[in-house]
Amino acid sequence: MGAKYTIPHEVTYYECDVNHTMKLSTMIAIVIKVSEEQSDLLNRGNDYIHQFGVTWIITHYEVFISRLPRVNEKIQVTTQAMQYNKYFCYRDFWITTESGEELVHIESIFSLMNYTTRKISSVTEDIIAPFESEKITKIKRPQKVEPLENPRSNAYNVRFYDIDSNHHVNNSVYFDWLIDGLGYDFLTTYEPKYINVRFDKEVEYGNQIESLYEVVDQENGKQTRHAIKIADKKYCEAQIEWQEK
Amino acid sequence: MGAKYTIPHEVTYYECDVNHTMKLSTMIAIVIKVSEEQSDLLNRGNDYIHQFGVTWIITHYEVFISRLPRVNEKIQVTTQAMQYNKYFCYRDFWITTESGEELVHIESIFSLMNYTTRKISSVTEDIIAPFESEKITKIKRPQKVEPLENPRSNAYNVRFYDIDSNHHVNNSVYFDWLIDGLGYDFLTTYEPKYINVRFDKEVEYGNQIESLYEVVDQENGKQTRHAIKIADKKYCEAQIEWQEK
Repeated sequence: MGAKYTIPHEVTYYECDVNHTMKLSTMIAIVIKVSEEQSDLLNRGNDYIHQFGVTWIITHYEVFISRLPRVNEKIQVTTQAMQYNKYFCYRDFWITTESGEELVHIESIFSLMNYTTRKISSVTEDIIAPFESEKITKIKRPQKVEPLENPRSNAYNVRFYDIDSNHHVNNSVYFDWLIDGLGYDFLTTYEPKYINVRFDKEVEYGNQIESLYEVVDQENGKQTRHAIKIADKKYCEAQIEWQEK
Repeated sequence: MGAKYTIPHEVTYYECDVNHTMKLSTMIAIVIKVSEEQSDLLNRGNDYIHQFGVTWIITHYEVFISRLPRVNEKIQVTTQAMQYNKYFCYRDFWITTESGEELVHIESIFSLMNYTTRKISSVTEDIIAPFESEKITKIKRPQKVEPLENPRSNAYNVRFYDIDSNHHVNNSVYFDWLIDGLGYDFLTTYEPKYINVRFDKEVEYGNQIESLYEVVDQENGKQTRHAIKIADKKYCEAQIEWQEK
């Protein structure tokens, strides 16, 4: 198992929604910040890896939520590079209270993408060694996302503020599009307990995306299924399990 | 002049746009956090003022920008309640570098609004005294915003994540709508030096707003004029002066 890195964070009002708990998009933005800080500390930051013509992309998150961080709460955000194989790096995140109670656990899959070809590039020892993660040969199959049957949909334009300093739409922005359609009543009645999200293609500035969603009744709450599409091509799909608050 | 209150802040990547400088919406969200923290410290936080059936609203900002805070920069954010009269409180904010260089200065106008009637309520000694601001009789007239002549416009739906814990669309969100239409080329060529924005009515969850804008050439850069409307009623208007980067 690789080196751990932790930063403290105090949750602000503008990181929270009407429920006084952290927005999913902000939560993802913060965990990515922690992994970027660790990379910088290990001298494997963006400047370093860009010399090889590659950049990190994230293709998958599985999020396990005990409860979401609350406004004004002091939390700890930890990351650890777990394992890697030829094309995939498995990185975990934990959000805990100051006293160490686990609030959120995230499993993610990172890959290196060639800037020019936009294709996945193999992971090199030089880039990965300082993270001290375990080399494995197995390719883990992420949990499948259930297909949509009779979705509703909303359109969203990619905004100038949705793109980050790498000119990409940051992964965190997809969470805004994914859940928004569920609406106020749903989003103030249910809280997410599990999220499985897969990123297939890169959305770009200037795109208009369709966010498709469907609510499925379950014994113990609701399941929602999601896809983000442009012109019938799937860019992202997700499944979220919700419980009544 | 009233009591000053300062917090340190380190600018994160997700608070910045493609230019590696802080998003205007985030900058406004952070200064509001500082004024809320000061109110809490003086025991005049939301819980306290809600007992009188009122809440703070912000009706005006004038923003003077030397340069925007940059990614990873350590800044100081200061607020001070300056003056008040029967209906208006004048509060200033400063963003400075760690060594005290002024980056941004903001002048704002706050009022108390009655929850039930949604009308402006007069400022009481009980609420304002701890801020030690100066009582004045004069009502300051904020700088006028130039009217639009041949605007273009974009539509935006208010999203679930645009509303804050008070069920309002936070003032900071308007900045996303205001500038987005100017587009990538404009927003990566010019940087804002002066912003004058007036909030007339409250946008609510479920609304679709029209963001109107127009670019006017100036000797020393560009001026943009803005309005946010719903069904031809003006909710917000703004004027921004830009200089080539």
